[in-house]
Amino acid sequence: MSSLNELSLTELIARRLTGELDIQQLVEDCIQRINQREPEVQAFQYFNADQVRKSYLSQDMNLEHQGTDLLGIPFGVKDIMDTWDMPTGWGSPIYADHQPAKDAGIVAALRSCGAQVMGKTVTTEFAYFYPGKTRNPKNTSHTPGGSSQGSAAAVADFMIPFSLGSQTAASVIRPAAFCGVVGYKASHGEFDLGGICSLSQSMDSLGMFVRDVQDLQIIRSVLLGCQSPQKTHQPQKVGLVKTPHWLDASEATQQLLTHTAEQIRGSGTDVVELHIGPQDDSLTEAQKTIMAYEVARSRAFEYHNYISQVSPQMCALIEDGKHVSRQAYVQALQLAESSRQQLIEVFSDVDFLLAPSAIGEAPVGIDSTGDPVFSRMWNLLGGPAVTLPAGTGPKGLPLGVQLIGAKFQDDALLGNAVWLQNQLRL
Amino acid sequence: MSSLNELSLTELIARRLTGELDIQQLVEDCIQRINQREPEVQAFQYFNADQVRKSYLSQDMNLEHQGTDLLGIPFGVKDIMDTWDMPTGWGSPIYADHQPAKDAGIVAALRSCGAQVMGKTVTTEFAYFYPGKTRNPKNTSHTPGGSSQGSAAAVADFMIPFSLGSQTAASVIRPAAFCGVVGYKASHGEFDLGGICSLSQSMDSLGMFVRDVQDLQIIRSVLLGCQSPQKTHQPQKVGLVKTPHWLDASEATQQLLTHTAEQIRGSGTDVVELHIGPQDDSLTEAQKTIMAYEVARSRAFEYHNYISQVSPQMCALIEDGKHVSRQAYVQALQLAESSRQQLIEVFSDVDFLLAPSAIGEAPVGIDSTGDPVFSRMWNLLGGPAVTLPAGTGPKGLPLGVQLIGAKFQDDALLGNAVWLQNQLRL
Repeated sequence: MSSLNELSLTELIARRLTGELDIQQLVEDCIQRINQREPEVQAFQYFNADQVRKSYLSQDMNLEHQGTDLLGIPFGVKDIMDTWDMPTGWGSPIYADHQPAKDAGIVAALRSCGAQVMGKTVTTEFAYFYPGKTRNPKNTSHTPGGSSQGSAAAVADFMIPFSLGSQTAASVIRPAAFCGVVGYKASHGEFDLGGICSLSQSMDSLGMFVRDVQDLQIIRSVLLGCQSPQKTHQPQKVGLVKTPHWLDASEATQQLLTHTAEQIRGSGTDVVELHIGPQDDSLTEAQKTIMAYEVARSRAFEYHNYISQVSPQMCALIEDGKHVSRQAYVQALQLAESSRQQLIEVFSDVDFLLAPSAIGEAPVGIDSTGDPVFSRMWNLLGGPAVTLPAGTGPKGLPLGVQLIGAKFQDDALLGNAVWLQNQLRL
Repeated sequence: MSSLNELSLTELIARRLTGELDIQQLVEDCIQRINQREPEVQAFQYFNADQVRKSYLSQDMNLEHQGTDLLGIPFGVKDIMDTWDMPTGWGSPIYADHQPAKDAGIVAALRSCGAQVMGKTVTTEFAYFYPGKTRNPKNTSHTPGGSSQGSAAAVADFMIPFSLGSQTAASVIRPAAFCGVVGYKASHGEFDLGGICSLSQSMDSLGMFVRDVQDLQIIRSVLLGCQSPQKTHQPQKVGLVKTPHWLDASEATQQLLTHTAEQIRGSGTDVVELHIGPQDDSLTEAQKTIMAYEVARSRAFEYHNYISQVSPQMCALIEDGKHVSRQAYVQALQLAESSRQQLIEVFSDVDFLLAPSAIGEAPVGIDSTGDPVFSRMWNLLGGPAVTLPAGTGPKGLPLGVQLIGAKFQDDALLGNAVWLQNQLRL
């Protein structure tokens, strides 16, 4: 019989409904898994089993919580998100022992529904490129991707049922795809970002990692009180978007996308190939421009006061940003805005867009978190995105497919994603 | 001869250009003014003259700074903005002794240009309605307005040449109008908001208080490296917007607006009356809906853990927000978005919009900060706004007129505002 830590949130809640879920056993199974695997995977920046046990003792598991579905469910928190009772280091040596006074809004919201923080998961430095210590649990000589690397690895390795991440370029979709789990990047603005270290305020978005896309419907239902009109929803029409970066995708990724499109067609859904925005890579470039400009602002304190403790990668980005003129920045924002308006029309015709999640499998080594090229433009456009595990590449590592939805239509996208997950599992 | 604390930033810099500015004397004059007036005005939450003097000693005033115009200029920081060397209490007893680890992005940026923090200015609780201790320096039995009340009062009372604020409903425009200074609410997204306590992330915007609108051009030029094409710019056409709340405005405010429109016409600029958005108050209501919904998220930690230390006003707002459905919230965001698109066309025809800054003079007493009704809709629409002192009401207290510009066209608006300031001073 499988340990409780291996169950998805959906499976855990199904057990609770029939009175079979022992929350204490779930937590002990998760803790045991972490103790067993953490020396190799290193998903956690901060984890204290005794503190976790104590928090369960102090929580009345029979309390009437707003969202009882999450009562007692442990989750991981990316270490750029404030927690009042655990240090928050933002992946930077500057803030190694930093203890915030409060919880980030999203952490407070989850805790108020009875969910329990298992620990702080490893982030790259300030959620940008300089990697943390985490390894890909599917093959520990490979990167798990970044920046939400600990959150992706911990869920992929059955240490916790779900975890929080954030994305500005590809920090949720890429590590989820590399680790073989479901990654969800919410619409920009969909969740509160207070108490989360900001990288680029025009684009920072909250993300989550789970092992079953239905789990996201449960979390959203508890947090937002909203539900998909249909839990699973076959789309009428899907737009396949190869993006201007198609030739950067590995052969396996190209084949996977083509094959997935065929599978969707085979189920009776129309698939049409679409181009979004300008034919060149100007949306990706606009994302880079905005990010560099805004990072130069958001990291001004560290750059001017602790430069010796800022990574060369971050310094280079800040210096790039200092050379972006305000005019170039505003032009990039305007291109994003006009492309978002265009996208509204696209989504009046198709249910979701299908695109690669990443170039290919997780690269070998942990010195780089891989290329974010297949998420930058989607992140710029501000809608929700989901990556589903959809196969493996030549090295036997996971590959994902990405679904992109209309802004603030996250529930509709998740309904389609549940449908596609079911197709992929057939 | 006037003390240096009475000079505007523009006048200070003009003196520096001719070698006549003694920075140490400026600081001492400001400190003396604060010591003299603070017992009555109470603009500062945290002020330590010795610490300020020490920071000047440790700063080489001959250093080549990025923006030498601000070198050695003291400024005030609203106490919802992080400062690494001064406590930041967000106007809440929960965080009374809270010491952040770093500076907010905008504070770090100003300091990196050589500007010096004079102290932390009083804010209402979490920048919402529950008032702080500050009194209106023009008449201390009246409110200075809120939420950026200390910042407005300190500049109005010649304690500092400029200060930082923030606005979600009317937290810059209203206190500036009530205290008789220039208030500037930047375009949403124009400045970094990292390290600033968020109230409502879709609408929070940075603000500044000065005594001459030209001062804003100096600060923007240093911070953003951009300049108005013309420092002062006569508009061709102005849109007078009475708003659906016109009947709430005092007679003096109505007369002031009508008179200002006449003055503008008299100078050869066309003035047309315009309506923006729906004819009813739905933009104002959308602002309230979004604010309540987002505050319920952003203050989840305090609400669930420290409710006895949260004011009744804030609790009521959070509870309102908990009853806003996600659907109503998204609809309000969509109304804002479509109205913003509409506004783009309006600004292809007029240079700026002219509207009341507030209902009238500052109300008596300090238990309420006054009604934000004349700023809510403009804040929702995301463009820049400036209030200029333009007269006095029946009680002899200041009245302002509000100028609203196109989003991210802050420099154009300031060029027009300099022109109008000159007209009003004639």
